Amino acid sequence: MPNSPIRKLVPYAESAVQRGLKVYYLNIGQPDIETPQLMLDAVRNSDFKILEYGHSAGNETYRKKLVKYYKSVGIDIEYNQILITTGGSEALLFGFMACFDPGDEVIIPEPFYANYHGFAAEAGVEVVTVTSDISTSFALPPIEELEKKITPRTRAIVICNPNNPTGYVYSKQEMEQLGEMVLKHDLYLFCDEAYREFNYEGEIPTSSLSLIGVDNNVIMVDTISKRYSACGGRIGAFVTRNKELIDTVMKFAQARLCPPGFAQMAGEAALDLPSDYFDITKAEYRSRRDLIVSRLNAMEGVNCPMPSGAFYCFAELPIDDANKFCQWLLESFSYKNSTVMLAPGPGFYATPGHGKKEVRFAYVLNKTDINAAMDCLEEALKIYSGK
Amino acid sequence: MPNSPIRKLVPYAESAVQRGLKVYYLNIGQPDIETPQLMLDAVRNSDFKILEYGHSAGNETYRKKLVKYYKSVGIDIEYNQILITTGGSEALLFGFMACFDPGDEVIIPEPFYANYHGFAAEAGVEVVTVTSDISTSFALPPIEELEKKITPRTRAIVICNPNNPTGYVYSKQEMEQLGEMVLKHDLYLFCDEAYREFNYEGEIPTSSLSLIGVDNNVIMVDTISKRYSACGGRIGAFVTRNKELIDTVMKFAQARLCPPGFAQMAGEAALDLPSDYFDITKAEYRSRRDLIVSRLNAMEGVNCPMPSGAFYCFAELPIDDANKFCQWLLESFSYKNSTVMLAPGPGFYATPGHGKKEVRFAYVLNKTDINAAMDCLEEALKIYSGK
Repeated sequence: MPNSPIRKLVPYAESAVQRGLKVYYLNIGQPDIETPQLMLDAVRNSDFKILEYGHSAGNETYRKKLVKYYKSVGIDIEYNQILITTGGSEALLFGFMACFDPGDEVIIPEPFYANYHGFAAEAGVEVVTVTSDISTSFALPPIEELEKKITPRTRAIVICNPNNPTGYVYSKQEMEQLGEMVLKHDLYLFCDEAYREFNYEGEIPTSSLSLIGVDNNVIMVDTISKRYSACGGRIGAFVTRNKELIDTVMKFAQARLCPPGFAQMAGEAALDLPSDYFDITKAEYRSRRDLIVSRLNAMEGVNCPMPSGAFYCFAELPIDDANKFCQWLLESFSYKNSTVMLAPGPGFYATPGHGKKEVRFAYVLNKTDINAAMDCLEEALKIYSGK
Repeated sequence: MPNSPIRKLVPYAESAVQRGLKVYYLNIGQPDIETPQLMLDAVRNSDFKILEYGHSAGNETYRKKLVKYYKSVGIDIEYNQILITTGGSEALLFGFMACFDPGDEVIIPEPFYANYHGFAAEAGVEVVTVTSDISTSFALPPIEELEKKITPRTRAIVICNPNNPTGYVYSKQEMEQLGEMVLKHDLYLFCDEAYREFNYEGEIPTSSLSLIGVDNNVIMVDTISKRYSACGGRIGAFVTRNKELIDTVMKFAQARLCPPGFAQMAGEAALDLPSDYFDITKAEYRSRRDLIVSRLNAMEGVNCPMPSGAFYCFAELPIDDANKFCQWLLESFSYKNSTVMLAPGPGFYATPGHGKKEVRFAYVLNKTDINAAMDCLEEALKIYSGK
């Protein structure tokens, strides 16, 4: 399994902190938004006496309430088509293990969420990429480019919408093209919809589950981590209308007994949040996005497309090597006794050499901190010698 | 993946309940003992604002406290040799995926915990068995029997000590024999020590981690589920002194980000329980064991060895087919408006035809209920036609 370039930076960040520097962490999708009190209270005010095994597919009350939530975002699904997992991670792992055999191939537009590589490695599957380009704001590459990569061993397309790491939101047309392609070639479409609510330029993006005629092809992966700032709970969902597939995944679910008990209560409580919850959270993220993107594009030689969704932006910097630069920021640079931790672009590509000048920013800090972090970066780019 | 015979019974149990019957569930290892208040309070009294990602290896404070716990049970281990997992299940899955390639073989004495089969299937590994016999109370078969099963594809021996489903506790000599064998043949020894504290005939059993000279061979799997009656928390541990192996498993751990946050707090709090906690719990289980085994052996044609540990006993009944009998109990039998759900023996064997007359009992109900369940069984055996 590949070692993530972000993880390689962790000791440098720790050492920077030990040297007394303030480090602005823009490297990881850990929001600073508070977990809704309602969710934490559901756990804290619980009064059960025995922390028992739950249902392997997740608590039925939770799944039934999720049906209403999905309906509210335009997705018609039944409760027995939802399987609660230990984070979106487990949903991906179960899906990969259930759908693929070692040696199979999956096509993923790059840059992509680095952990997909991990789950693919665990399932013995090869990742084949098509490259999204910064010049099109990381839109889906022309569908013919994807089609060219299909071989007899190809089993699935894996996408994330809104996208981590680019923030790109796939259009209805792009989603429909993907739907037609998986139907035509009899492939699975895995769609990670963790950031569904975070679309700053429009409505809820087209869900993979809204595509027509591909009920047996689509696997939607979900999680409460980002939506409700509840990353540590480890509650996700595997959702599909493919009966045979969910029956298979249920066997994996039974082998690990059940998803975490406490956090399911929090997840269920989240469904009682007032309807304006996302308005407030979205407004905050949108203003951070506007700030960070304008700050970045004001720096000489920096190119950052305006992302529509999630809480990431992916920029090209005037540097020789993002891995080197991100390490240098932590190891050898400081400005006003602080520095910034970023996620190097190459970690999001499978193609060697790609993303060398690119970096992902997670705008998960408040605007004061984002400004301070951008001051650091601006200064750093002025003096960094590797251009 | 095989479908468990217990799971096949679930609809029959549900239907029995719907018909108004009281069902005594002796089929599953879900203790009725209350989770210690201290553990639940640690979660309920927490005051964090954001449910953040934790460390992929588990919270460092928790791992450091576990070092002291392990020392108290005679195991010397360092905190970075412990990786907190989502239940013992994830520890087994990670271990199997890290140690094995598809087509490899693992040797497991049968009867064995049915989910090992699931994890083996997920890792693409073949389960090879040696059979423990009821006449020796399910002791480890002669070591030569195990050795005969070793092929060039054999990678590991997997045991559970104290044993689920038999309750057998491996002796120091048996553990040492296993240690010598894995060293001689360069195999891994996976040892599931979920029931460590529940040994009714002596001290803490010999841990796999106490064996000499096999530091690179031994993987100990642990969990808080049974020890503290906290099955729904999903907190376990992968423990090994093999540095290369734990580094590999750490990559799997990083791909799934972190173990559940709330339950880690409960797990850490458990380490502050008073030292007599297990005395009380053990005394309760011991008296249940004595009751159920004496009730079973008083029934005509029933043979139940006295188990030393865990909270299971495994008995031979005067029946033709345990799967049929267990279904009949739920479908067609009642006594004083109640019946009993048991785990059919064949589900714990990989060899077809084995365990046909055997059944596992989990003594996880109070003695009044155990007596009532035994009254049912006694009556059932009198009238069951398939002998």
